[in-house]
Amino acid sequence: MSEVIFRNGTILTIDPGHRVLAGDVATKDGVIVHVGGTYTPQTSDYQILDCAGCVIMPGLVQAHVHTCQTLARGRADDLELLDWLRNVIWPYEASLDEAAMTASAELACAELLLGGTTAILDMGTVHHTDQVFAAAERSGIRATIGKAMMDAVDPQIPTGLRESTQHSLDESARLIKRWHGTANERLRYAYAPRFVLSCTDELLREVGVQAKARGVGIHTHASENKGEVALVRDRFGKDNIHVLDELGLLGPHTCIAHAIHLSDDERALLASRGAHVCTCPSSNLKLASGICALPELIAAGVNVGLGADGAPCNNNLDGFTELRFVALLHKPRSGPRTLPAPEAVKLATLGGAHALGLGTQIGSLELGKRGDLIAVDVTPLHTLPASSPWSQIAYAAKSCDVRHVAVDGSVVVRDKSLLTLDIARIRASARDTAARLFR
Amino acid sequence: MSEVIFRNGTILTIDPGHRVLAGDVATKDGVIVHVGGTYTPQTSDYQILDCAGCVIMPGLVQAHVHTCQTLARGRADDLELLDWLRNVIWPYEASLDEAAMTASAELACAELLLGGTTAILDMGTVHHTDQVFAAAERSGIRATIGKAMMDAVDPQIPTGLRESTQHSLDESARLIKRWHGTANERLRYAYAPRFVLSCTDELLREVGVQAKARGVGIHTHASENKGEVALVRDRFGKDNIHVLDELGLLGPHTCIAHAIHLSDDERALLASRGAHVCTCPSSNLKLASGICALPELIAAGVNVGLGADGAPCNNNLDGFTELRFVALLHKPRSGPRTLPAPEAVKLATLGGAHALGLGTQIGSLELGKRGDLIAVDVTPLHTLPASSPWSQIAYAAKSCDVRHVAVDGSVVVRDKSLLTLDIARIRASARDTAARLFR
Repeated sequence: MSEVIFRNGTILTIDPGHRVLAGDVATKDGVIVHVGGTYTPQTSDYQILDCAGCVIMPGLVQAHVHTCQTLARGRADDLELLDWLRNVIWPYEASLDEAAMTASAELACAELLLGGTTAILDMGTVHHTDQVFAAAERSGIRATIGKAMMDAVDPQIPTGLRESTQHSLDESARLIKRWHGTANERLRYAYAPRFVLSCTDELLREVGVQAKARGVGIHTHASENKGEVALVRDRFGKDNIHVLDELGLLGPHTCIAHAIHLSDDERALLASRGAHVCTCPSSNLKLASGICALPELIAAGVNVGLGADGAPCNNNLDGFTELRFVALLHKPRSGPRTLPAPEAVKLATLGGAHALGLGTQIGSLELGKRGDLIAVDVTPLHTLPASSPWSQIAYAAKSCDVRHVAVDGSVVVRDKSLLTLDIARIRASARDTAARLFR
Repeated sequence: MSEVIFRNGTILTIDPGHRVLAGDVATKDGVIVHVGGTYTPQTSDYQILDCAGCVIMPGLVQAHVHTCQTLARGRADDLELLDWLRNVIWPYEASLDEAAMTASAELACAELLLGGTTAILDMGTVHHTDQVFAAAERSGIRATIGKAMMDAVDPQIPTGLRESTQHSLDESARLIKRWHGTANERLRYAYAPRFVLSCTDELLREVGVQAKARGVGIHTHASENKGEVALVRDRFGKDNIHVLDELGLLGPHTCIAHAIHLSDDERALLASRGAHVCTCPSSNLKLASGICALPELIAAGVNVGLGADGAPCNNNLDGFTELRFVALLHKPRSGPRTLPAPEAVKLATLGGAHALGLGTQIGSLELGKRGDLIAVDVTPLHTLPASSPWSQIAYAAKSCDVRHVAVDGSVVVRDKSLLTLDIARIRASARDTAARLFR
């Protein structure tokens, strides 16, 4: 289909005027060519999706997920980050073979698309990153993916995840060559040093140099947990964000997941480097990591995106749940006007797009941008009666209300059905593979 | 139908042994007669609901809602409690006529049942409580309802909501006579002095006396907001819970909504009186009220239930959302093992049942209890792969996964369709009435 028309909804443009329009959004050959009012197809090659009763908006962007972890959903509840990693998640990741990785990544991509997330920044594990890319490619999601880099000499990292500095860099280079910019640039690479404690200084420095040279992003975790912050301070004698900066890792191409325990100084440094933060409210609560000082980060001028993190620390990959959480969670400390609905919706769309380095291409419905958009049904009782569409989307709508999804101008979900992958097969494969891994 | 069989699921009994069983749950003439294994109908008058792929569990109980507020969903975002009440909610409640109240309460009951909530403790407004009862009766939900009592001389309370002490008591007495124990005891009354600031001491004292004499419960708000706490201290020279106790309002028949800002002393007093607390996590965040010190309340021995509060401060009436919130929200301060999944699920079912004074009748699947139960589909991708059903229900399942619902042994939702009320009419009525009220 060269033309895709989302017909007759209420349109949240997320454009600079925050315009709310009525009518159609149309894409042609993957590009948005029409926003608001009625669109008349220009060719005979078009597809119309009925959006009556729906809000049409940019697809949600999740700037921090781990699609490789999905099969461990519900297997690592009620643990703190470092225990969660060392006792369950790292051994689980080490046990993943190619088939298991495919099962995990396909389950994630399907869940994400059905729930209205059209773009992700994904951290894989050390191995089998090709399987993550291939799953994302088949699913139709827009994905920036990096293999996790873990070359530190840490006896708590299982053998199956340890790698040499050179292997980590070589494998990244190979993946960039193979995947970066493929599928009409829907797939991209980002260097993903897991966190400073899992990497040598040498690796981190080299990542900064190579990412810049190759024009790809950097995606890492930092300051998620007080124990982690203390270990970083022990090793480097300074705080996490300063360490990352001195190793050359901070820039407008960098997205830091979590960033909960920061000083004012670290926030200012992030802002001055143009680095992005991805906040993951459910995960941060479930791992007892804390609540990110998001109002301060935003006030400091840091762009923020939203992410579900991995299924074992969430336990969903639901952008609408995270959107509602982020809108609610900061109000008790910072007042009821903190992150009002329009700001929260913008953070979950355009904020994430910027964090992926794609702010000029996705995240809002504007002429010339890529056709990543969703239609959310706001006729279920739990969103009624209609008030403001901003309020409906931020506070009341659910991922199960997503009716249609297009990525890059291709319809991937229609009438709540995923068109790209076989759900029955994904379900069976998830069940069988999890039974094998956790027996 | 005299026999209703939820067939072939995974059963969370919430019984004293926290048993998880496979098979059927059956009710006969409203009473649970079978839990686990296969049930053979005893008569020809039976109905079988397929629960393959489902968790069968007690219906969620919400121990604090305002069904009268549902039409104001999305109309009072980003306000603090006292502004929210005085500027939007009280004027809205004052504007409700009988038809609007019916529209609001029916919308709420339908949303609640479709989302797996089978029992509520509801605070109405000053007037038109008959309409709330009638809507609950028609919908099939189990409801304990009280008219809001507001006899204080406060110029900020709109004329339409002011009432005399005598009127407030007389109207309550009339409602008890009309409704308490009707619909096979599915409908009950509870005195509902709104909060101490909206009532005279005389009214509050009399409520304590009359509730005891008539054998009905008491439902009020307390210590939701720091401003409210300060005003109470100004007026009485002591804290909220002590005020309620001295006025004779605390006992095992009393459910206090919110209870966020309490001293250790107040928690101990609540426990010693056997009074219950209903925590409302979304509402408390959205109104910037704070985060209830739930671990301390539970440690002090206070029984806790869960509630969504009203649609304008939530903006859903979704028991699953609140269950997930309550399981996550207290971990950062009190550690990742705080309220693990089984405890959270118990709080959302049996905890609420106790708060309604119905702990011996509902809240768990045990022989002889009333047939309030739900089947939750755990085959959608966002709950896969299966791990523990406790984890699936507490952290991953959504209200839209609720497949079947029975209340008092009557099927009210079958295959996600509400059988008792006309959804199209509710939707149209909500739309038209809200347009009239908010024009």
